[in-house]
Amino acid sequence: MATKRKYLNYTTPWGVSLSPVARAGWSAFLIHESGFQPALENWNHEGVDSPFWRFYHNPKAGCHLRYQGREIPLLPDEYVLIPANTIFDCCGPVTACHYWLHFTVTRLAGTVPVGPVVLPVDETLRLQLQAVLRTHAEAPHALRDHRLYHESAALLHSAFARLELPPTQDIPDRLLDVLDLIQKAPHTHLSNSFLADRAGMSLERFIPDYAVE
Amino acid sequence: MATKRKYLNYTTPWGVSLSPVARAGWSAFLIHESGFQPALENWNHEGVDSPFWRFYHNPKAGCHLRYQGREIPLLPDEYVLIPANTIFDCCGPVTACHYWLHFTVTRLAGTVPVGPVVLPVDETLRLQLQAVLRTHAEAPHALRDHRLYHESAALLHSAFARLELPPTQDIPDRLLDVLDLIQKAPHTHLSNSFLADRAGMSLERFIPDYAVE
Repeated sequence: MATKRKYLNYTTPWGVSLSPVARAGWSAFLIHESGFQPALENWNHEGVDSPFWRFYHNPKAGCHLRYQGREIPLLPDEYVLIPANTIFDCCGPVTACHYWLHFTVTRLAGTVPVGPVVLPVDETLRLQLQAVLRTHAEAPHALRDHRLYHESAALLHSAFARLELPPTQDIPDRLLDVLDLIQKAPHTHLSNSFLADRAGMSLERFIPDYAVE
Repeated sequence: MATKRKYLNYTTPWGVSLSPVARAGWSAFLIHESGFQPALENWNHEGVDSPFWRFYHNPKAGCHLRYQGREIPLLPDEYVLIPANTIFDCCGPVTACHYWLHFTVTRLAGTVPVGPVVLPVDETLRLQLQAVLRTHAEAPHALRDHRLYHESAALLHSAFARLELPPTQDIPDRLLDVLDLIQKAPHTHLSNSFLADRAGMSLERFIPDYAVE
């Protein structure tokens, strides 16, 4: 006799369905690296450019970024989100006390901010940052890295909760697959005919709205 | 002339590589629902059973869970993680002030806790919970739901950072794919020959270590 299962419903009439998370506009993160160095000498790098996003937080003042001629100080009560493919300089006139995350944003559709975004560190983020710096100070072991991963992910979600990205329009699933392909391989040559094929569309229909070049 | 790109390295010698996140044991979450009801009448449900995990936090005391004859009070300074396929009762002798998340844990390999896990709400989590309850109180709109998603995800990552799961052994990628299949469809009948095929292994080699029944 088959067992009767109760309460199999993933959503209820009393909550807010977050199932669209697997869709466009509800960013998820693939974190490549979490780093903290309390005293980096000569933190001067010109023309930094990367296919991934960066989260920067310097617990001590003194260093700054330079972006399109503008100086962006790295202050202890702020953090900076730098979208992928943003070209900037790291300027360290003093020793840098620097925390960073390198990450790829997946499922991101719609408008991406242009240039670094500076946001204030509120009390929750301050505690989260303290936790992640404490974890960095521990001797490396598997549990430490696992905690580092979760603390970094919590930090990024908290940061993005404060980033008011304009809501995106509904996008058909097959186009999301294409978007996903492009996001995963931004430096690969993906032809329009290849992408149109993945979207299940003719090249003629694909090109007007979605062509990559 | 091809543009020379600088700093393409996803990881550096100065940080901690978190690239294994896409591998087993580094749980990620698919959140189905976030719910808050400050006054639920008759919160009494016997034999609750679900293929997804639950995060429970009651900001006011008075209700409890019953699991294998044991009473687990839902206290304002604690939260409870309930793994998938745990059968329990919700007991509401008083009106329930109840916050919940329904979610699926992906990439989870190795030991899963048996039964509900009760953990203390520390200061960071307390602030995170306050934020998510505030967001629930807002009128529904796209930005609210987007923030709710990120705040819920931050909450889960913070909760799992405190859940010291034993480190898992390295698992070959092709077996991860199989694990992924099983996790995504726990109630589907997946035959060993189908799974062995997905793992690129013979049935004879697959069965001793990985057979599902």
